[in-house]
Amino acid sequence: MPLPAEFHDIAKRVNNWGRWGGADEIGTLNLITDEVVRSAAAAIRTGRRISLALPLRQDGVQTGLIPGRVNPLHTMVAINQELFGPGAVATSDDVVTMGLQTATHWDALPHVSHSGKIYNGRTADTITAHGGAAFSGIEKTGPVVSRGVLLDVARAHGMERLPNDHAVSPEDLDAAEELAGIRVKAGDIVLIRTGQIQRYLTGDKDAYAFPSPGLSIRTPEWFHARDIAAVANDTITFEIFPPEIEGLWLPVHALDLVEMGLLQGQNWNLEELSAACAAESRYDFFLCATPEPVVGGTGTPVAPVAIL
Amino acid sequence: MPLPAEFHDIAKRVNNWGRWGGADEIGTLNLITDEVVRSAAAAIRTGRRISLALPLRQDGVQTGLIPGRVNPLHTMVAINQELFGPGAVATSDDVVTMGLQTATHWDALPHVSHSGKIYNGRTADTITAHGGAAFSGIEKTGPVVSRGVLLDVARAHGMERLPNDHAVSPEDLDAAEELAGIRVKAGDIVLIRTGQIQRYLTGDKDAYAFPSPGLSIRTPEWFHARDIAAVANDTITFEIFPPEIEGLWLPVHALDLVEMGLLQGQNWNLEELSAACAAESRYDFFLCATPEPVVGGTGTPVAPVAIL
Amino acid sequence: MPLPAEFHDIAKRVNNWGRWGGADEIGTLNLITDEVVRSAAAAIRTGRRISLALPLRQDGVQTGLIPGRVNPLHTMVAINQELFGPGAVATSDDVVTMGLQTATHWDALPHVSHSGKIYNGRTADTITAHGGAAFSGIEKTGPVVSRGVLLDVARAHGMERLPNDHAVSPEDLDAAEELAGIRVKAGDIVLIRTGQIQRYLTGDKDAYAFPSPGLSIRTPEWFHARDIAAVANDTITFEIFPPEIEGLWLPVHALDLVEMGLLQGQNWNLEELSAACAAESRYDFFLCATPEPVVGGTGTPVAPVAIL
Amino acid sequence: MPLPAEFHDIAKRVNNWGRWGGADEIGTLNLITDEVVRSAAAAIRTGRRISLALPLRQDGVQTGLIPGRVNPLHTMVAINQELFGPGAVATSDDVVTMGLQTATHWDALPHVSHSGKIYNGRTADTITAHGGAAFSGIEKTGPVVSRGVLLDVARAHGMERLPNDHAVSPEDLDAAEELAGIRVKAGDIVLIRTGQIQRYLTGDKDAYAFPSPGLSIRTPEWFHARDIAAVANDTITFEIFPPEIEGLWLPVHALDLVEMGLLQGQNWNLEELSAACAAESRYDFFLCATPEPVVGGTGTPVAPVAIL
Repeated sequence: MPLPAEFHDIAKRVNNWGRWGGADEIGTLNLITDEVVRSAAAAIRTGRRISLALPLRQDGVQTGLIPGRVNPLHTMVAINQELFGPGAVATSDDVVTMGLQTATHWDALPHVSHSGKIYNGRTADTITAHGGAAFSGIEKTGPVVSRGVLLDVARAHGMERLPNDHAVSPEDLDAAEELAGIRVKAGDIVLIRTGQIQRYLTGDKDAYAFPSPGLSIRTPEWFHARDIAAVANDTITFEIFPPEIEGLWLPVHALDLVEMGLLQGQNWNLEELSAACAAESRYDFFLCATPEPVVGGTGTPVAPVAIL
Repeated sequence: MPLPAEFHDIAKRVNNWGRWGGADEIGTLNLITDEVVRSAAAAIRTGRRISLALPLRQDGVQTGLIPGRVNPLHTMVAINQELFGPGAVATSDDVVTMGLQTATHWDALPHVSHSGKIYNGRTADTITAHGGAAFSGIEKTGPVVSRGVLLDVARAHGMERLPNDHAVSPEDLDAAEELAGIRVKAGDIVLIRTGQIQRYLTGDKDAYAFPSPGLSIRTPEWFHARDIAAVANDTITFEIFPPEIEGLWLPVHALDLVEMGLLQGQNWNLEELSAACAAESRYDFFLCATPEPVVGGTGTPVAPVAIL
Repeated sequence: MPLPAEFHDIAKRVNNWGRWGGADEIGTLNLITDEVVRSAAAAIRTGRRISLALPLRQDGVQTGLIPGRVNPLHTMVAINQELFGPGAVATSDDVVTMGLQTATHWDALPHVSHSGKIYNGRTADTITAHGGAAFSGIEKTGPVVSRGVLLDVARAHGMERLPNDHAVSPEDLDAAEELAGIRVKAGDIVLIRTGQIQRYLTGDKDAYAFPSPGLSIRTPEWFHARDIAAVANDTITFEIFPPEIEGLWLPVHALDLVEMGLLQGQNWNLEELSAACAAESRYDFFLCATPEPVVGGTGTPVAPVAIL
Repeated sequence: MPLPAEFHDIAKRVNNWGRWGGADEIGTLNLITDEVVRSAAAAIRTGRRISLALPLRQDGVQTGLIPGRVNPLHTMVAINQELFGPGAVATSDDVVTMGLQTATHWDALPHVSHSGKIYNGRTADTITAHGGAAFSGIEKTGPVVSRGVLLDVARAHGMERLPNDHAVSPEDLDAAEELAGIRVKAGDIVLIRTGQIQRYLTGDKDAYAFPSPGLSIRTPEWFHARDIAAVANDTITFEIFPPEIEGLWLPVHALDLVEMGLLQGQNWNLEELSAACAAESRYDFFLCATPEPVVGGTGTPVAPVAIL
C-alpha cells in the first residue's frame, strides 16, 4: 500500500534534502553552530546536573514485541582476577549485548526509510548487514550538545501524564512553550514530556509500550518552522501509537528522519527534569547528549544530561 | 606475593575511604559541585566541540591479549523491514556486543581490587557474576561534566609522542600545566596526553597496546594534592607498561580506583584536542563525559566531548 | 538455611564421589563404554530419525524470569556480500547470542553446587568469571551417544500431559518401564516425558515455565540403582516446581549433578518421539546428544536425535 | 565481473534444482533415507567414539580477517548464586556469543549465493536481516546422521599434511578411497583430510587460515557422481585458497551449496579420526553431526562424532 497523499503533502513542506548539500549526512544537526553552543552556555545557571537516561539493565523497557530489540545483557568475563599472580592487583571486566534502539537512545537518520529512500535522497539499500548504514550512520553525528528546552505538555495540561490516545499537537507545543516562557529557536534540542514513562518507572512495561500518547503527524511542520536540531521524548513509540490515520504507520518517524533529517530520541526519562524546571520556573538548560559512535549504527544508546 | 611497602606508603597518603562517608560510592566525583560546574561553563568560549571518542568498530584497539575484552561487534537485526506491510515505512534495527573496557571508556571504581578490597573499604566479593558490582557500579556515577584541562605532556616535551618507556611523572604534569598556563583545581577532570594513540590511528594496534608510556606510580599523589575529580589519557594501559617496579602490576589503577576513588579513563583520542588547544593557546574547556549507566558495570564506553 | 537431613540422607546413598577416581570430571558418563555403544547400535531398526531439539529463536521458552538466561538472538553480519567484487560469489554470515541453559540443553555437572561443593568434592569456587568451570566444564564431556530409553510417564498414566503438581516418582518410572517393555540398564540415557512442553508448543510460555510437573526428590535413587548415564525431560525446571519439600529448592539438581555426577537435560521435545514409540510399541533407540564443547561452560545447547 | 564460462559449465552438470521438487530446502540430505541410516548402523563395530569438534573458546581459529566472524565469547551471568537464599542449592549460568561459521560448523545452503540465486533457484534476497534465511535455513536440516567415510588425502599421499598450494582433486579422492578400501556411495557423508588443521592445533592460526590447501573446483562433479549427502574438511576455507582460477573466488562453495544443495562443513578436526582409521585399517563409521537449529541460520556450530 503506497503512503497516502496527506503524508506526501507534509513531506514536501518539511523536506530538507539538499539544504546542506548533496553530501550532507547529519541533517538538522547542521543548525548547531559554534554560536548556538556558545550562547547555550548561558543556560547553565545553577550547575545542577540531571540525568535523562534509564539505567541499562535486563529488566529494561523492551517487552519482546519488537524482535531483536533486546534489553541490555550485562555479563562478567573476569571478577577480581589476579592476572599477575596471587596477591597482585586484581581486575574485573564485563561485556554488554544490547539493541541500539533498546533503552534511552537516538534514532540515527537511516533508522527508517520510505519509498526506498533515506535522508537526503539516498537509496535505502545503502544499509547492509555488513557495515550497517553507509550514510548517516550514528558515528557521523559527532558531538550533540546545544541548548535544551523542555516542552512539558503534560504539565501544561495540568496532568500527571497524557492519556493513551493523546496525539501531541502543534497547539500543545505552543502551550508548553508558553508555560516555559521562552521561545524555541534554531539549533535547540527540544524535549517533549508526556509523562508516559511513569508507567515503566512504576513497573508496568506493557502499559508503557502500547497504546501510547506521542507526537502527532502535525508536529514535524512545527519542528521545521522552528528549525530545531533534534527532538526526544519519554515514550517508546515516539509518535502516538496506534497512529492517527489508519494504515499510516510511523509517519512522524518518516517525516523527521527521512524528510527533515531530524535526529529523534526515545525513552528519555524527563520526570526529574520536569520537577526541577517547574520548581525553578525555567525550562531551558545546557544539554549534552552525544551518541556512542557505533560505526554504521542506525541508533545508539545515549546518556543525556541536562545542566541547569 | 603481597604488594610492597612502597605501594602501601603511597596508598596511605592518597586514601579517601570515609572522606565522603561510609556509604559513598562515587569518590572524587563528589568534588564536582554545582559551583564547580557553574564556573566550568565559563570555559565555553568559542562553542567549538571536539569528540574524544574512538569509533566503535570491530577493528578497534583490542588485540585479543586481554581475554574477553572484545572489540565492538555491530550486527543488524532488521534492514528496511516493512513491519506494517509492503510499501509502509520501513525500519532498521541493530545490536552491539562489546567489552565495557574495550574502547574509549571509564573504569568504574571496582574495576580493580587489591588485598580483597575495593573503594571505600568494601570487600571485593561484592562483585558477582549475577549483578556485577553491587557498590560503585558505573550506573552510580550519574552525570560526569566539569571543567576539563588538557595536560599535554608530549607537547610540553616538544615531542609528537612520548617514548614507550616514559613514565609520566608529577614533574611532567607540572610542566604541562605551565604550558597550559592555568592551574588544575578541585573538581577538574584532567586529560593527560602522551600521543601514544597515534600508533593505533596509524594502524599499528600491537605497538599501541604494549609497551606503552603511561602514568607513573608517583602521579596519584599529585592528583590527590590537586583534588581532581577524574583523569583520562590516550593509552590502553593508562599507566606505564610494563610497570616501573618489577612485579608491581597496575599500581596506579589500585591507587586511583581503590584508594582514592578516582574515576579513570583510557583510549581517549586527544589528538584533535591537542591541536586545537595549541592553536588557541588555551587548555581548559567544558567537558561532557557521562557514562552509559550499565547497572553493576565495572566500566563503560563513553563518548567524551570537549567544548572550547 | 542449611539443607535438611532428608536431603543429606539421600545424598549419601547416591553419592559417586571418588567412584571413578579423584581426577574424574564426567561422572556417570563413565558408564557409557564402547560395549554399551556397540550394543546400542542394535536399537537402530528402521533408520527413522527424530529431532528432540526446540528451534533456536528469540521466541524461545525463556520468559525473563531467570535473569541473564536470554533466548537465542540471531543477527546477520553479512547478507549476500560480494567480498571479492561485483558479480562474485556472495556470502552471508551470522552470529548468535544465547544462554547456555536457555533452550534444549544439557546442564554441565557444575551448573549447581551445594554446601560449597560441586561434583567429586571439588570446591565451588573453581567456577570463575574468567574461564567458567575449571572442572567438569561441558567441553570435558566429549561425545554423548548411547542407547536411549523413553519413559513415557504421561502415556503410562493415560494422560496427554501430567498435571502441574505431579512429582514423577520411582513408581511412575517403573510403570513407564513396564509400558516400554524393556528394562533400563547401566549406561542408558533416559528420557522422561511429562507432556509439559505441549504448553510451550501451543503458545503458553508462562504456563510451561511454572508451576510444572517434574522429577521427584525420590528419583535420583532410582537413577543410581539403575546406573543410568544421563537423563533429560520435557520441562524447563526438570524437577517438580515448586518443590515437594518447602524451602528445599532444586534438590534433584543437587543430587543428580553434584552427588551422582549425572548429566541432566531440559526442554527436550519428546512429543514426536512419544508418538513414534507408541506407534511402533518400542521405546528404545540410538541417541546422539553430544554437547557443544563450550570451554568452561556450565551448560550447552544440544540438538539431540533419536534413531529408531 | 560475471562468473566465467568454465564455472557455468560445471554448474550445469552438477545442478540439482528441482530434483527433489520445487519446494525442497535440504538438497542432497534427501539422499539420507531410513535405509541408508539403517545400513550405516553396521559401521558401528567397536563402539569407540571420536569427537571431530574444536573446543569453543575465545582463542578459536578466527583471526579477525573475516569481519563479524567472531570467536566464541563465553561469559558468566551467575556463579554459585543462591537464588533461594543463603545455604540453598546454588546455580551457575552462562552465555555465549559466536559467529555461526566461526568454529567447527556446517554452512547452510544459503551461506553463499551467486548470480542472485541460492539453492533450488530461489532469489538471494530471501535472506534478510530480520529472520535470516527464509529458505534452507539451517533449522530446516533436521537430524544429520549417516555413514561417514574418511578420505584421508594427506595419508594417501604419505604426507603429514598437504602443502599450501595443493588443490584436492578427484584423483586424490580416488586414491584416498583406494586407501580406505571402500567405495563411497549415495547418502554417505564424506570427510576429507588435508592435515591443515595441525597448524591451528600447534598454535599458528595465521598459517592455518591462509594460504590453505583445499578442494579443487573439479571435486563437485565427483561428489555429484557419487551422490554424497554432505562433505566436510579440516580447513577454514574449505576450498583451496587462493583459488585455482584467478578472479574466481569460492567456486566450490557456489557449486556445492547453490547448484547441488550439498551441505558442507569446515574446521573439522580429523586428526584423531585419521589415526584411529589407520590403526584399524577401516575408514567408515557412523557419523552424528546434527546442526544446532538456529532459525534462519546460514550456518551452525556442530559437534560431530564418529562412532567406529
